[in-house]
Amino acid sequence: MSTFGTHFRVTTFGESHCKGVGCIIDGCPPGLALTEDDIQPQLTRRRPGQSNLTTPRDEKDRVTILSGTEFGHTLGTPIGLTVPNQDQRPHDYTETDLFPRPSHADWTYLLKYGLKASSGGGRASARETIGRVAAGAVAEKFLKEAYGTEFIAFVSSVGKVAMPFIEEQSETGVPSDEFVEMLSTVTREQIDAEPTRCPDKEISKMMTQRIIDAKEANDSIGGTVTCVIRNVPTGLGEPCFDKLEAKLAHAMLSIPATKAFEIGSGFGGTQVPGHLHNDAWVQKTGRKGQKFLGTKTNFSGGIQGGISNGENIYFRIGFKSPATISQEQQTTSYGGVEGVLATRGRHDPCVVPRATPIVEAMAALVIMDAVMIQLARHGAASLLPPMPETPLRPAPFIMSVPGGQAIKVDETSKPKTE
Amino acid sequence: MSTFGTHFRVTTFGESHCKGVGCIIDGCPPGLALTEDDIQPQLTRRRPGQSNLTTPRDEKDRVTILSGTEFGHTLGTPIGLTVPNQDQRPHDYTETDLFPRPSHADWTYLLKYGLKASSGGGRASARETIGRVAAGAVAEKFLKEAYGTEFIAFVSSVGKVAMPFIEEQSETGVPSDEFVEMLSTVTREQIDAEPTRCPDKEISKMMTQRIIDAKEANDSIGGTVTCVIRNVPTGLGEPCFDKLEAKLAHAMLSIPATKAFEIGSGFGGTQVPGHLHNDAWVQKTGRKGQKFLGTKTNFSGGIQGGISNGENIYFRIGFKSPATISQEQQTTSYGGVEGVLATRGRHDPCVVPRATPIVEAMAALVIMDAVMIQLARHGAASLLPPMPETPLRPAPFIMSVPGGQAIKVDETSKPKTE
Amino acid sequence: MSTFGTHFRVTTFGESHCKGVGCIIDGCPPGLALTEDDIQPQLTRRRPGQSNLTTPRDEKDRVTILSGTEFGHTLGTPIGLTVPNQDQRPHDYTETDLFPRPSHADWTYLLKYGLKASSGGGRASARETIGRVAAGAVAEKFLKEAYGTEFIAFVSSVGKVAMPFIEEQSETGVPSDEFVEMLSTVTREQIDAEPTRCPDKEISKMMTQRIIDAKEANDSIGGTVTCVIRNVPTGLGEPCFDKLEAKLAHAMLSIPATKAFEIGSGFGGTQVPGHLHNDAWVQKTGRKGQKFLGTKTNFSGGIQGGISNGENIYFRIGFKSPATISQEQQTTSYGGVEGVLATRGRHDPCVVPRATPIVEAMAALVIMDAVMIQLARHGAASLLPPMPETPLRPAPFIMSVPGGQAIKVDETSKPKTE
Amino acid sequence: MSTFGTHFRVTTFGESHCKGVGCIIDGCPPGLALTEDDIQPQLTRRRPGQSNLTTPRDEKDRVTILSGTEFGHTLGTPIGLTVPNQDQRPHDYTETDLFPRPSHADWTYLLKYGLKASSGGGRASARETIGRVAAGAVAEKFLKEAYGTEFIAFVSSVGKVAMPFIEEQSETGVPSDEFVEMLSTVTREQIDAEPTRCPDKEISKMMTQRIIDAKEANDSIGGTVTCVIRNVPTGLGEPCFDKLEAKLAHAMLSIPATKAFEIGSGFGGTQVPGHLHNDAWVQKTGRKGQKFLGTKTNFSGGIQGGISNGENIYFRIGFKSPATISQEQQTTSYGGVEGVLATRGRHDPCVVPRATPIVEAMAALVIMDAVMIQLARHGAASLLPPMPETPLRPAPFIMSVPGGQAIKVDETSKPKTE
Repeated sequence: MSTFGTHFRVTTFGESHCKGVGCIIDGCPPGLALTEDDIQPQLTRRRPGQSNLTTPRDEKDRVTILSGTEFGHTLGTPIGLTVPNQDQRPHDYTETDLFPRPSHADWTYLLKYGLKASSGGGRASARETIGRVAAGAVAEKFLKEAYGTEFIAFVSSVGKVAMPFIEEQSETGVPSDEFVEMLSTVTREQIDAEPTRCPDKEISKMMTQRIIDAKEANDSIGGTVTCVIRNVPTGLGEPCFDKLEAKLAHAMLSIPATKAFEIGSGFGGTQVPGHLHNDAWVQKTGRKGQKFLGTKTNFSGGIQGGISNGENIYFRIGFKSPATISQEQQTTSYGGVEGVLATRGRHDPCVVPRATPIVEAMAALVIMDAVMIQLARHGAASLLPPMPETPLRPAPFIMSVPGGQAIKVDETSKPKTE
Repeated sequence: MSTFGTHFRVTTFGESHCKGVGCIIDGCPPGLALTEDDIQPQLTRRRPGQSNLTTPRDEKDRVTILSGTEFGHTLGTPIGLTVPNQDQRPHDYTETDLFPRPSHADWTYLLKYGLKASSGGGRASARETIGRVAAGAVAEKFLKEAYGTEFIAFVSSVGKVAMPFIEEQSETGVPSDEFVEMLSTVTREQIDAEPTRCPDKEISKMMTQRIIDAKEANDSIGGTVTCVIRNVPTGLGEPCFDKLEAKLAHAMLSIPATKAFEIGSGFGGTQVPGHLHNDAWVQKTGRKGQKFLGTKTNFSGGIQGGISNGENIYFRIGFKSPATISQEQQTTSYGGVEGVLATRGRHDPCVVPRATPIVEAMAALVIMDAVMIQLARHGAASLLPPMPETPLRPAPFIMSVPGGQAIKVDETSKPKTE
Repeated sequence: MSTFGTHFRVTTFGESHCKGVGCIIDGCPPGLALTEDDIQPQLTRRRPGQSNLTTPRDEKDRVTILSGTEFGHTLGTPIGLTVPNQDQRPHDYTETDLFPRPSHADWTYLLKYGLKASSGGGRASARETIGRVAAGAVAEKFLKEAYGTEFIAFVSSVGKVAMPFIEEQSETGVPSDEFVEMLSTVTREQIDAEPTRCPDKEISKMMTQRIIDAKEANDSIGGTVTCVIRNVPTGLGEPCFDKLEAKLAHAMLSIPATKAFEIGSGFGGTQVPGHLHNDAWVQKTGRKGQKFLGTKTNFSGGIQGGISNGENIYFRIGFKSPATISQEQQTTSYGGVEGVLATRGRHDPCVVPRATPIVEAMAALVIMDAVMIQLARHGAASLLPPMPETPLRPAPFIMSVPGGQAIKVDETSKPKTE
Repeated sequence: MSTFGTHFRVTTFGESHCKGVGCIIDGCPPGLALTEDDIQPQLTRRRPGQSNLTTPRDEKDRVTILSGTEFGHTLGTPIGLTVPNQDQRPHDYTETDLFPRPSHADWTYLLKYGLKASSGGGRASARETIGRVAAGAVAEKFLKEAYGTEFIAFVSSVGKVAMPFIEEQSETGVPSDEFVEMLSTVTREQIDAEPTRCPDKEISKMMTQRIIDAKEANDSIGGTVTCVIRNVPTGLGEPCFDKLEAKLAHAMLSIPATKAFEIGSGFGGTQVPGHLHNDAWVQKTGRKGQKFLGTKTNFSGGIQGGISNGENIYFRIGFKSPATISQEQQTTSYGGVEGVLATRGRHDPCVVPRATPIVEAMAALVIMDAVMIQLARHGAASLLPPMPETPLRPAPFIMSVPGGQAIKVDETSKPKTE
């Protein structure tokens, strides 16, 4: 329904043509420094009207914290967040009174709810994502302070204009070293320097032109977003149904207009034999000098058996071209009569630049929830008396990031017979 | 955790080296004809030892219904299902006492749980999927009886050997007419006629060779599975976080060894402009002569705005090459010492043939749960007095399949001003 | 946490000293006529300042619907509701900076969250219940329209001043005929005619005096609320953990200051042997002339085996005396120093009159959620082909109220051998 | 449905006339020493045939752990538990083919599921509680090892034969000092020494006679069970809907035949004014010499604002007289025909002696789940940087038991201005 997460649980409300949108965050840890200023930047990155590549609707999207904080810190109680709706212009959509928009949610919402709201596919609107982005910003802040975790999403392709790594991988099946290196270093500042949110300046220019072409043709175009999560705590993800990649896929495919998800080597990796695809273990040295086991390559994308291994998590999401275009489209009316629909209104010719903060938000919500589940297990197990010597080879719980607190490899996992 | 679904809720247990595996199905509607014979066939399709392409372990995998049925019908109470473990040979895995297998769950399970079970990545074992397949068979039976819904999964690629539609789509961005037609007609019998479970006989031969090559090289290889769901009730999928494709992605990425998911036109569709990608509405005629709105093309994959529109749902899943191979691998031990691991034991060189019933099962669990949520909404709304005339244009609830009961297009959705 | 219900799911936010309180209702059926005017009356019945028996804080408590409705009807999407906080006077509570109030949540909130908000036991405040009452009003409206279900709560005792049935039952162990009759006839109007919300005018006068005595002594007093639910659909309640009485008990004990719950004959009934306590079955005639099986007595309180049988559901809840009193209390400070606390501020000397709409709201939320679960099961089972003749003796689903649609006793449940 | 808990999550299956009953425990912390021997004792305490006061059915009730442990320790993966059904004698119930038993679940199960299983009210059977008791034993073992928490339930009344504290409290409204003292000292051994499980030998004799009288009269009798939880971690219970007493009430009212629940001073306490009912704070000294804030009296029952304060939690549950009696009962058949039902079969004349381990089990499940939620919050908050000086007066998280690790009263909660 409209709730995501078990411990860090977000419930959203609102559609395009009501008084406001927002969410309730339940389960946020107490004591986190939090004001509207921590949330607004991601909302501003998400909102329309940022450049000539996005819809000119100038939604202000100012967030208000209604509850759950005091003196600039979270209380542990539910955080109510609202953003008022402005600049709605409901009459822009009147043509859709006759025709369900092709590939939009107008018809399926009618099938589902038995009635037709002003905004057609009501909650399918991109405006619904405001609550997610607000909640994600809170999760991101916690994870940054607790573990130094970073969420970086960027545009990796628009139509057929793609960053080179995509082509390379479709040939070799696995990500290139340059790509993997880029994932470790790319910054949000580099990404925001480009209107397309593609950090490759040359490719970004071509993408910009591709979007402008679509706009001028009253058309639209799809693209892909790539996201990396750095400094991920280990041990996240719940066997068997809530594997970490399963939750990430769920989260990403819940974003409007998404059609595809791949993690690590993804579809390309299916072509590569095991002896080339397996990520060998190597001992690495963390920022504080501690030793830990990492992987030589990272074709797994930081997750093995559904559980994070501490390496970067990275994945790519496919967004289709927006359904609402101003071109004339031959289609059929609600009543079954063939005709031509030409939608007016202001629409994004391409959603991927604005989708990047939504991807980051959903990723942060997944990681945050997984962290709290693992902390519960960790906390409970640590209360038990030490296990006797058995082949289970008891290890103290390990929940850390490569550059963070020491992973006690030696004591915990010493093999019996080595 | 180990529970999937809200209304039709499956909880599984068991790993490779315990007494048994199984599940509890809670929320199955009462009055469904059900015996072990309805469940066993899918378990048999899943089990190892079916051909020389799969692991020679001959697990019998006989299921027993412990509760929840009487006189061959479900009671509505929880259905307990168990399958005993046989032929475990725990000593096959002793080398992994020293080395966590590369790209396997051995190390991440240790990170997560702080101890090391005999089976290494315990619940990451394919054996855990028995409970899913059993539960999926029950859901599938209900949906077949209630709506005629069909779930058909087949192998669409092994390594670089792929059915032609994959190549075609990577060029044009959208599925070809032939592929879409094939989705409507392919049968489970055609699929099971091939050891690879690829319905294209020529391609299947090449796939067989590819798998044998991997096996002989003590190596492994990945592949993709494509699944189509036919006769899907309309209106399934819950905005906003539980869009139907999001639940499907979650379900599929929870299957061991999966790395990628795409629905409808998928990644290819991101390259295609909106005016080509939009699925125009057309009036269609059902098997009983009723009129309904369908789509001319089906690049959406049967889901729009997260909600099923009654067209075929189809998606493709990427499975990596299995991590456990008998070749020597240079890696590092639990204790941080470099060395060489050569795993003994009997392992699938390629999991996709056996994965097809698992994919079908997970798809059935997703659809079943979505059906029950929509039935609750439908049932509740139908108890209300009729709405007055407003622009909401109230429509009686519509939940059917194209060939099934009439969709009342004319009365329900007549636009005001046409 | 702050979410209640599975299908009709309410999430609340807000404490005393933040900008506002409210809730999100997710899963409300589409097409329900709903405006603020449907919600406000129960909020007004709940709010302080209604008589000299309640706290003089005059909270306006005007509710705003932010989303989920259009043209006065629900859309099926989440309904966001807010009520701004006014008249907060945070400085009233300063003494509690030094001393945790005895029997209040100040200290336990500090234990739980590790910090101390202005309002002490933040979400333990009665103000938190506004979101519940608003959501309950929506559930109540649906159930009234769908089934004619009625929720009536009244004050049955204040301190030792109790309606006669309580004394009678403590003697005989079972409810008297007069009491059972009263449950079927008492109206909300009769209840609201008394400032105490006790429908017995004589007892109400004594209760009023008891509350005024407490107020004048800077003291407080407890009491009990009795609630009856009439025209309850049959078949509600989920074995085994979510029996209907278990959900009702959960809901009622989640209301601040509650300490006890009994349903039907309750504690008194434990003293009565089975042959006197069992409710014999009798054939009854509904308002529309239909026959149905009901019970001669109703010591079960309308629920058997955790499932509603169509008779009135009734239960009683114990509320302790409010913890915050203006008398001096000998206690110990946060820092462990003994001292005297005399709380200022405006506090209810007795919560039970204002608690009645909260009880009704929570009862409505429980019944609403149970209705939707049963509708899902009902809808699913009704799609199956008819069962063959077996001792399971298949019966069409029966979900109705005694005076409502016919219960098909004859056809459905005819015994084999009678 | 049939799942209880969020983190420590139990799902049960099985009814009287199927092959077996059991449960899956998901979320058990890894590393807990656990074999069947840890679970069997409580099952044995629950099973019938223990004395002449209970049903003579001699169910062996031997539990088998199917998964989730190895080398005698939990792995963190789901624990599957089964107990086979024996000695079912399905034909004992044939009379109930014609008549739904008064006050039993036969009729309501038919209303709910539309069919009639052999066991009538299937999952309403006491046999369903086996899975709960098994799961509760695991939770209890963890809590004993982690915190020294103890769960002690005993029979406090049978019919009108009651331990003196019940009468005393109905007079004074609050528990006596002797009763509170007894709660701190009573042992399971003392309780099991009596066939009634009432630790007061004199009262137990009278109870025994009362039960024998009922048995000889082919009748049945109800009673109450009182439970105390000692050494409870502080900070447990989730505002606002999942207050600890709400979860306990939910758990207890989900046990078959329960009708009433009261915690702390309960219904009696509603008669007592605030200045007498409030529990003053006092500084206490723990077993290790540490200082902590406790309460002078404990009328709150160890929970304030829905959160545990570290004092003993105690509550009382009312069980009605069993519905199935061998006397002739005038009633009405499924088909609406009046007649006389005389049930054969072996039935408990009084359930409370056997109910005590079920009460303990459900209490342990509630506490265990609450512990894990609080550990998640605790763990997350402890990762944050220290809060600056604000009136929130940040305190390190406190989760301990009075006799356990030190509660840091002085540093954490020192008021600024004292």
